[in-house]
Amino acid sequence: MVTQWNECEQQFMDYTKRIAQYEEAINLMYWDLRTGAPSKGVEGRSGVIATLSQTVHEWYTSDQMKLYINQLKDESKNELIQKSVEQCEKNYNQFVKIPPEEYKEYVVLQSQSEAAWEKAKETNDFELFLPYLEKMVAYNKKFANYWGYEDHPYNALLDQYEPGMTVNVLDDVFSKVRIALTELLHQVTQSSVQPDASLLQVDFPNEQQKAFSIEILKRMGYDFDAGRLDETVHPFAIELNSGDVRITNNYNEKDFRVATFGTIHEGGHALYEQNIAKDLAYTPLAGGTSMGIHESQSLFWENFVARSEAFWKHHYPLFQSYAPDTFKHVDFTSFYSAINEVKPSFIRIEADELTYCLHIMVRYELEKALINNEIEVKDLPQLWNDKMEQYLGIRPTSNKVGILQDVHWAGGAFGYFPSYALGYMYAAQLYEAMTRQIDVDDMIQNGDFTAIRQWLTEHIHQHGKKKKPLQLLMDATGEALNPNYLIQYLKRKYEDLYQIKGS
Amino acid sequence: MVTQWNECEQQFMDYTKRIAQYEEAINLMYWDLRTGAPSKGVEGRSGVIATLSQTVHEWYTSDQMKLYINQLKDESKNELIQKSVEQCEKNYNQFVKIPPEEYKEYVVLQSQSEAAWEKAKETNDFELFLPYLEKMVAYNKKFANYWGYEDHPYNALLDQYEPGMTVNVLDDVFSKVRIALTELLHQVTQSSVQPDASLLQVDFPNEQQKAFSIEILKRMGYDFDAGRLDETVHPFAIELNSGDVRITNNYNEKDFRVATFGTIHEGGHALYEQNIAKDLAYTPLAGGTSMGIHESQSLFWENFVARSEAFWKHHYPLFQSYAPDTFKHVDFTSFYSAINEVKPSFIRIEADELTYCLHIMVRYELEKALINNEIEVKDLPQLWNDKMEQYLGIRPTSNKVGILQDVHWAGGAFGYFPSYALGYMYAAQLYEAMTRQIDVDDMIQNGDFTAIRQWLTEHIHQHGKKKKPLQLLMDATGEALNPNYLIQYLKRKYEDLYQIKGS
Repeated sequence: MVTQWNECEQQFMDYTKRIAQYEEAINLMYWDLRTGAPSKGVEGRSGVIATLSQTVHEWYTSDQMKLYINQLKDESKNELIQKSVEQCEKNYNQFVKIPPEEYKEYVVLQSQSEAAWEKAKETNDFELFLPYLEKMVAYNKKFANYWGYEDHPYNALLDQYEPGMTVNVLDDVFSKVRIALTELLHQVTQSSVQPDASLLQVDFPNEQQKAFSIEILKRMGYDFDAGRLDETVHPFAIELNSGDVRITNNYNEKDFRVATFGTIHEGGHALYEQNIAKDLAYTPLAGGTSMGIHESQSLFWENFVARSEAFWKHHYPLFQSYAPDTFKHVDFTSFYSAINEVKPSFIRIEADELTYCLHIMVRYELEKALINNEIEVKDLPQLWNDKMEQYLGIRPTSNKVGILQDVHWAGGAFGYFPSYALGYMYAAQLYEAMTRQIDVDDMIQNGDFTAIRQWLTEHIHQHGKKKKPLQLLMDATGEALNPNYLIQYLKRKYEDLYQIKGS
Repeated sequence: MVTQWNECEQQFMDYTKRIAQYEEAINLMYWDLRTGAPSKGVEGRSGVIATLSQTVHEWYTSDQMKLYINQLKDESKNELIQKSVEQCEKNYNQFVKIPPEEYKEYVVLQSQSEAAWEKAKETNDFELFLPYLEKMVAYNKKFANYWGYEDHPYNALLDQYEPGMTVNVLDDVFSKVRIALTELLHQVTQSSVQPDASLLQVDFPNEQQKAFSIEILKRMGYDFDAGRLDETVHPFAIELNSGDVRITNNYNEKDFRVATFGTIHEGGHALYEQNIAKDLAYTPLAGGTSMGIHESQSLFWENFVARSEAFWKHHYPLFQSYAPDTFKHVDFTSFYSAINEVKPSFIRIEADELTYCLHIMVRYELEKALINNEIEVKDLPQLWNDKMEQYLGIRPTSNKVGILQDVHWAGGAFGYFPSYALGYMYAAQLYEAMTRQIDVDDMIQNGDFTAIRQWLTEHIHQHGKKKKPLQLLMDATGEALNPNYLIQYLKRKYEDLYQIKGS
């Protein structure tokens, strides 16, 4: 099918293609900085990134862009153009509503704040970070006002990461999830059945871990001709173009779970980007539609597939063939229980799938209250620890393992954290919808993920940004966001693992 | 020292800095394409490179650039500005003298021609390549006329790669070198003393070769905090910025010479770029001053240092500690003779240091005659083989190992080949000048290259493009290009190795 565009449409698509091309160059530079660029070149490279980023910013906010939006909005009959214009209009408004001087100051502050946070975390000194965090919060409050909102200023921030999501919806679904999970967590910690996770912490050479990671990625359908795997301190997936979606992971010789589940998680993100319809390439609709939907894809593979009993029934022998000999003496049940150990801990990124959402809720409630002037930045350490105690039953022993652990707020990313918990809920709901059409468990147990990946591509991946997250969810599952699927999934799994009599 | 620039000067330097930044982004994309970018992303990435390259081209040839040149030329009192303007003016003229339509056609033809060459080489079919090569030659003849020249049209092409060099100079020095080397080569091949190079061709694991390469690079003074070593099919060095100069090499498990001498060669290029004065960074004067001077740096290290007796006297035990056990039974003299084996062969990039220049002269004479309408493209295979027989005493058995072996002409790089031979002559002349000031042999034999690297940095590296090649040579050695140093060096070395009675 040849797309017929009129002259203005063609010009607009050429204009946005050039933006996408610049973003690809910038992304490659980011990838390179994290995967081994030499230290002495970093300052110069940062200058190159800044120059290209500034140009991209100028194009997003140019009079030319405004002209395209005005000319094509409500005029174009072409769906791709319509949705692309919509996407550009959102970006345009997001940027131009902030006075240029303020935006510049904010960008400078961002890097200062991240540097201060890094030092504060290193030295466990919240006071060092406090003045920066106060400014970041103040700016974001202002931005929320510039952008405008209904009901709650936090909605304006949320909309950046999860278009259409609101405090009303989140308060409702989060409270349901929180009540169910805190109860379940209580039962789990009280259970007399407790797995022994120490058996997992044995020497496992990185090379072997890597070989196993690659094998699993191939089985998931990650296309190595359209990507590559590298090593970084913090794992990530990055799309350069849909034929080049790279992932990184990190190896811990004493704990294979870091690399194994990390790789599968990033692989889930990468499958999304690799399978976006080719006709969206280099348009404003290329890329995942939201942080939450992206996270649903990584969590679907990491948890619903790769932490399942069915998965390890098939893959445990394969794993044993890569693993040190000690695993030959670990029976399947002990292994499966151990990798699903539930244990409240301070650090979000190390949390198990049951407590993870509770970590998110601590953050959500605090940032929502900050933006709404209900609490003050200086009181955060105390408030953080109180909430941790309330939800997870443990109190951080220092700010380093409390309020200072995440970079998000230092960079001004308020409204981002809920995406992680939404990703869990979306994934559970997708899993449920998928099982109504195909025998997912059976496929996982047979080690053939083709139909699963195809289902995700059909319902999620291919659409890129053509569908907004809540529409995508509705079309894929036939209903609006429903937290019960996550609750049911976790109850079923952990009541079974911890031999809790179901309520 | 704070540089004082007026407003126009500052604007010009900002303008050219942005060009340099774009070139850095483009170079990173090239590096990435060659070091492991996934195949399915290549098409998109090529589009990104094309978009950025077009912008750079527009900036080099813009009315704004012309304005800067006119305003600053002969006006600015600042040396850095003056030389930068001079550099930009040269680029400007080179581009704008070619009609834009013709330049566009040429760029398209370039990739078609390279693709045709690749196929022709693969299938040993010169006829396939002939029509493209004819067009490339025709374009370059036209360009020479657009650019203008004195005495000989080839001078216009030569000036792109080796500013200031002329056919008159080359004819003179090349004929001297050719006469001396063909005679020396005759003596060498007739000598009853012949090294046994087969002893070098033993299994040598890549990992061990790599470890040895890294060790030698460190000793040379290659700064790994300002670079990295990767593996590619064709080794190269590339400057992203002066704090990020990367090299690649290629491993042959059956012949360590490929990686060892390849690494040292690229390391020589990289040392040049790493040691350019920091105040030239992101100016038009960053980077090596010419292809010939660049090659002098790689060859200085590869041949004058790393193929010398002094080098191996110190490093052979180190080499043996990395090498397979078989080398424990190879005595020093056999090893040193073997790595300096002279043997006429068809392929330029596999040539020893004695025959290498003869390969270049074959190409130089043919391309000079082509550009001057003295010969025709269709006759090249025959002419090539005749010249090879005349200079090296061997006749290529196919076009694949003859006229089709190099990519240069396919890409239109006429005038480039002489740089390689000039690099040999420059290196020999630099070596001679250096020995008048420091005891080079002694330092090499002690394994301490500090003073050697410092000498090169002082006389060559730091100046970047601030000095033209022939001026650089004059300032560093006190005289104009003199081919006798290369002739003397080769005679001394190979008469000794092959026990030829000196004439």
